[in-house]
Amino acid sequence: MKYFVGIDIGGTNSKIGILNGKGDLLTNTSIKTESIKGVDFSLNKIWNTVLEMAQENNIDFKNIEGIGMGIPGPVINQEIVGFFANFPWERNINISKKMENISKVKTKLDNDVNVIALGETIFGAGKGFSKSVTIALGTGIGGGIFIDGKLISGANGVGGEIGHMKLVQNGKLCGCGQKGCFEAYASATGIIREAISRLMINKNNGLYEAIHGDLNKLEAKHIFDEAKKGDKFSLDIVDYVSEYLAMGIGNVLNLINPEVVILSGGVALAGDILLDSVREKLKKYTLDNALIDLQIKIGELGNNAGIMGAALLSEK
Amino acid sequence: MKYFVGIDIGGTNSKIGILNGKGDLLTNTSIKTESIKGVDFSLNKIWNTVLEMAQENNIDFKNIEGIGMGIPGPVINQEIVGFFANFPWERNINISKKMENISKVKTKLDNDVNVIALGETIFGAGKGFSKSVTIALGTGIGGGIFIDGKLISGANGVGGEIGHMKLVQNGKLCGCGQKGCFEAYASATGIIREAISRLMINKNNGLYEAIHGDLNKLEAKHIFDEAKKGDKFSLDIVDYVSEYLAMGIGNVLNLINPEVVILSGGVALAGDILLDSVREKLKKYTLDNALIDLQIKIGELGNNAGIMGAALLSEK
Repeated sequence: MKYFVGIDIGGTNSKIGILNGKGDLLTNTSIKTESIKGVDFSLNKIWNTVLEMAQENNIDFKNIEGIGMGIPGPVINQEIVGFFANFPWERNINISKKMENISKVKTKLDNDVNVIALGETIFGAGKGFSKSVTIALGTGIGGGIFIDGKLISGANGVGGEIGHMKLVQNGKLCGCGQKGCFEAYASATGIIREAISRLMINKNNGLYEAIHGDLNKLEAKHIFDEAKKGDKFSLDIVDYVSEYLAMGIGNVLNLINPEVVILSGGVALAGDILLDSVREKLKKYTLDNALIDLQIKIGELGNNAGIMGAALLSEK
Repeated sequence: MKYFVGIDIGGTNSKIGILNGKGDLLTNTSIKTESIKGVDFSLNKIWNTVLEMAQENNIDFKNIEGIGMGIPGPVINQEIVGFFANFPWERNINISKKMENISKVKTKLDNDVNVIALGETIFGAGKGFSKSVTIALGTGIGGGIFIDGKLISGANGVGGEIGHMKLVQNGKLCGCGQKGCFEAYASATGIIREAISRLMINKNNGLYEAIHGDLNKLEAKHIFDEAKKGDKFSLDIVDYVSEYLAMGIGNVLNLINPEVVILSGGVALAGDILLDSVREKLKKYTLDNALIDLQIKIGELGNNAGIMGAALLSEK
């Protein structure tokens, strides 16, 4: 039997899973990344955890054929990480080589939101559809365009980079260095940026109270929670975000015309307060025929989407 | 031997060609559409011309297996035309059924720019590439996304509708009824609209002289010609258009990451004065990796792209 390891590495916690060749998630756990102790410490800790998990599940670690990792930052050639968002680690580390030296197992990386999209597309809400678009709305926006059995990866692996579609000429600065990207408006980070910008000049609202005036504490979830309670200030932000979400999704629909759009990642967990608005606004941005019989679904794998998608990287 | 007829119907002239099953254009001609005499007159005239062409080329008309038509207007289900731009014909005519009644040959329709994109993708500048995007810049903007041997047509045939990707929230009104479409900015019509809007308040320029002040005469070609002569007013319009062209093309590159982008249609004939600017601006809108080894080509089929693409419709 062949086994594959999927790792979804985060600034605080790292999620780890072992899958068999059929894509069944056999075991999974979450550990503290302890990134402050350095990259070598964290990778060794992760691999030791994998070995323990294998032993507990009677898996011979020699049968682990591949490791895939989802990374919160830009990944080059599935091996080098441009920079780790919120990690005290160096730029341009070849994490793939480091992990291979530790584990002696072939290791491939991709951006964490791309990996979530991959997991949902293949194992989650996209399963059974021949034309799906998965949009992972997390710290960034990742995408997986899946047509007739294949992901559109493109000539250089850029296929599905939905988050860097430009929605505004000379718009908000994005983490990629360009301006006006979908991700700069509708990712969790984009939502928080917009909220902070507004909170700078309006402190008389439920959102400001909820975070006790500490902008550092603000998370996208606060905004959705306050909006659900009826806070007008937060509802306005949700309306602003859903406009860009509808524009970005609509653009993809006009180009790809899938049967289903799957929204995953933390922002998608906002649920109906965001999605009802997006559904309504989509009509402005999408050709009528692309909306016929279109399903819009929330991802089904939740926190496991990342590890399951990461494991898929290692199988390729 | 099987034969296929491709027809590119226009307000003034209609182009007609007969292809064999290998895609060779055996014979082609252009006739006056005489749309003023009504749809039945024009379709009969076109079919009689096909019969004459067949006879002259020793083609038994009974071996004509399909007819494809490129239509200057929106097409529903490959058979009904929502409206003919610049024709005195009714709305929602089932042109497919009418042509089948006249010819007794299966007839399929598509939008004229989509058909040009199809022709270039399969027979023209896209030939030999496994990942291509063809963008036909004519009265509208049509697209053909071709990946690993297949056009992306989508769940309801909307795939590749690049022209209706939104570039501006609540932007310029488009012929589709929505706002801010790529087509509203960068098609020949979009360029003329922008130029007319500017000419309303600035008549002291080479472009205004070139059309002797008659805004009805303005064509996109005038703008490019005056820009080439150094007319600052026209150069500014070219700059404006190339910004939107780069944004639209860049968005497609980030999603699809093709090996080649083929620009066809009348606007692409502007040549380097437009393309050099687009190439430069693309760097702002496209992830670096999507530009590696990317080729940007001008369509190769010229005026025959429409009839060759239309013939392909009939083969499907």
